[in-house]
Amino acid sequence: MAKQKPRTLSGFMELLPEKQVQFDRMVELLRRSYSLYGFTPLDTPIIEASEVLLAKGGGETEKQMYRFTKGDTDLSLRFDLTVPLAKYVALHYADLSFPFRRFQIGKVYRGERAQRGRFREFYQADIDVIGDGKLDIVNEAEIPAIIYNTFTALGLRRFQIRVNNRKILNGFYAMLGLTDKAGDIMRTVDKLDKIGPDKVKALLTGEDIGLSDGPADEILKFIAIQGGNQEVLAALEGYRGRNEGFDQGLDELATVVKYLSAFGVPEDHFAVDLTIARGLDYYTGTVYETTMLDHPEIGSICSGGRYDNLSEYYTEKQLPGVGISIGLTRLFFVLEDQGYLNGEMNTAPADTLILPMTGDLAPAIAFASQLRQAGVRTQLYTEQKKFKQKMSYADKIGVPYVVFLGEDEIKGGVVSIKDMATGQQQTLPLDQAANLIRKKIDAQASQTPIIDP
Amino acid sequence: MAKQKPRTLSGFMELLPEKQVQFDRMVELLRRSYSLYGFTPLDTPIIEASEVLLAKGGGETEKQMYRFTKGDTDLSLRFDLTVPLAKYVALHYADLSFPFRRFQIGKVYRGERAQRGRFREFYQADIDVIGDGKLDIVNEAEIPAIIYNTFTALGLRRFQIRVNNRKILNGFYAMLGLTDKAGDIMRTVDKLDKIGPDKVKALLTGEDIGLSDGPADEILKFIAIQGGNQEVLAALEGYRGRNEGFDQGLDELATVVKYLSAFGVPEDHFAVDLTIARGLDYYTGTVYETTMLDHPEIGSICSGGRYDNLSEYYTEKQLPGVGISIGLTRLFFVLEDQGYLNGEMNTAPADTLILPMTGDLAPAIAFASQLRQAGVRTQLYTEQKKFKQKMSYADKIGVPYVVFLGEDEIKGGVVSIKDMATGQQQTLPLDQAANLIRKKIDAQASQTPIIDP
Repeated sequence: MAKQKPRTLSGFMELLPEKQVQFDRMVELLRRSYSLYGFTPLDTPIIEASEVLLAKGGGETEKQMYRFTKGDTDLSLRFDLTVPLAKYVALHYADLSFPFRRFQIGKVYRGERAQRGRFREFYQADIDVIGDGKLDIVNEAEIPAIIYNTFTALGLRRFQIRVNNRKILNGFYAMLGLTDKAGDIMRTVDKLDKIGPDKVKALLTGEDIGLSDGPADEILKFIAIQGGNQEVLAALEGYRGRNEGFDQGLDELATVVKYLSAFGVPEDHFAVDLTIARGLDYYTGTVYETTMLDHPEIGSICSGGRYDNLSEYYTEKQLPGVGISIGLTRLFFVLEDQGYLNGEMNTAPADTLILPMTGDLAPAIAFASQLRQAGVRTQLYTEQKKFKQKMSYADKIGVPYVVFLGEDEIKGGVVSIKDMATGQQQTLPLDQAANLIRKKIDAQASQTPIIDP
Repeated sequence: MAKQKPRTLSGFMELLPEKQVQFDRMVELLRRSYSLYGFTPLDTPIIEASEVLLAKGGGETEKQMYRFTKGDTDLSLRFDLTVPLAKYVALHYADLSFPFRRFQIGKVYRGERAQRGRFREFYQADIDVIGDGKLDIVNEAEIPAIIYNTFTALGLRRFQIRVNNRKILNGFYAMLGLTDKAGDIMRTVDKLDKIGPDKVKALLTGEDIGLSDGPADEILKFIAIQGGNQEVLAALEGYRGRNEGFDQGLDELATVVKYLSAFGVPEDHFAVDLTIARGLDYYTGTVYETTMLDHPEIGSICSGGRYDNLSEYYTEKQLPGVGISIGLTRLFFVLEDQGYLNGEMNTAPADTLILPMTGDLAPAIAFASQLRQAGVRTQLYTEQKKFKQKMSYADKIGVPYVVFLGEDEIKGGVVSIKDMATGQQQTLPLDQAANLIRKKIDAQASQTPIIDP
């Protein structure tokens, strides 16, 4: 028979088992972390009616969409989890309680040009808090704590959460009479890290934006405000009283900073950064970025912010919110690429492999059942192979313990158990063997998928 | 602004938060159960190249596929998890260890005619054991144990796993010289439960199949074999020696039955059922169905079997396997529809809602952090609302405990904590309050998503 060559599409991540276990462990820890903050899990369809997903209108997104018809229906695959959330909240508004806190971890689709580290199918891991009419600023102050504790739970250490407030930016540009040009300016200022202040000034005073030297210098002075959080806040106080929005944004930023230590975020994992703007037409208050200190070139690994109107394309209700998103597939790719994945983590499909050495398998099966009842992931190996091949299989799947059950063991009510890491083999009563394995499992429970030395 | 009506496509399940928690709990318990048997998690793309998914050729499946082009590429959404597994194993053969045991829980797509309880996007929860060249019969014997323990973990009680062996069926029809007609006969026999033996005989002797009375009576006699597992096996022994395949199938069935009690499957949850055939062109040995005793009309909630060649369309390698699949979305729908979901389960987004009663939130935030460190899912409620509205929110989200932190509590190092189920309120030191909540969480850990009284 002619064979079809098996292949996986480019831009689609498909992991080998060991890596999949590490990825799944990350997902599990994200779920746990989000749950601890009172977010409820949500799952929405991957396919939606195109006109629902495109309610906001097209742009770059529309070109990247996977869109097709089935029967008479114009369908699209979701390209993020925010638009489906906006639809969900508008559709189920009457059945929800606000503030509505949900997390969603799921696949989204963008037909981007394929390149290394870019994916067309990728997981996003989002949380959002949605208010009905209003939403208290404390929700914005809690987000850095969630980011901090989530990445710490994954094992990451050297990262920094950068925060700004769009009201401060908008207010500042209003002071300069540059509200109309604020978008262009912010896009330029965003390049500061990459191109430096001189080139930023050249762009600001260049043909496209056309500022004169005075305002350009004011802007460069503003975005040069740096230092500890209190220093930055103090410097910003110097601008107070000239624009209402600015003052409000400064109050919000001060509140976010004020509760940091109560929320347990160490000072060195947090910075006010006036160059951050993010999603210019969407965010309206606090904005967040998260960068790996040793890999700034990767860009933000967790971003988001405050918005005033989640579902404006679907409902008259005013639904302000704050949310963040982790691009999990890309993050995983980068972590693997940069050697951050924990090679010591137990990624075996089982904690124990039982090798029965007798024709009657009943005693081996009974011990396997006993182990499983004790929460030990157990594989019974019954293939007709040579002993050496069986041990080689145990080695290859990386199982921590191999248990041998022969006539002598069965008669004596014991098992021979081999620790595959040390090579040590001992004969133990069933209960003690089960305890030995459980102890190892409990010790491994704190293993993180990331090692950041 | 004109609004886009928010809607979710028909045939696509989208759950409200409480139901989503129950669904997710089922997924979590499936993952745990499958893991205990040494299956490793896998995740493959939802989109595959059409020619890869269609390697086997079309038929009914092809018509139902979500198929489209993006750029020049002919793409399709997977319609099951078996074909992607076949591709995966062929593609990554060199990196896998056999027997390869994997589970996968993911969405699949079939553009079926929309009707109540049928879904176009639905979760399948599959396990498969794949051998390289050979696969021992004990793997087939273990499957009923996995089915039994998995559904029991979900809380289901009144179900039965029905087992047959295709070699027995094929052998039996070969004895009668009816191999050519075996497919048609099995499809007819499969209707026995619905239409009864007389109508089955009428169909067998009718124009389409055209058996004479003798063979038809033989068949009816054969499929009428019933009783305890040992009785059925004894009756089948009467046919031994007339067909090699039959004898082999009988040996296999006897082995599966033999190890049942060692694997901990109670006799009353298992039956040999000679009318079961399943996927005629695919399964080659043991086949499984699982039915809810009180709802046979639902059909099988977990099915599968042994097959000889998983990846024959992709590789020359002989890869026999055995697997089962649960149609999770439909199962969940049926369970909800029939009142099987556990209404007592804690589906709140948090275990505790903290209501700060002071301007400075630092003490409330610190207590929230303490609870989260103790694994208590905690929501801090800081919206500016009246007390009554806050309590009504707590009621609506179903949170088990509300904690009040006012000046007096903060001074005294205590909290007021209200048990929302009993209405009882008490003042406790922080640690004791945390312990009280933890105790409730631990008590709830054994709650099953299904209640089958």
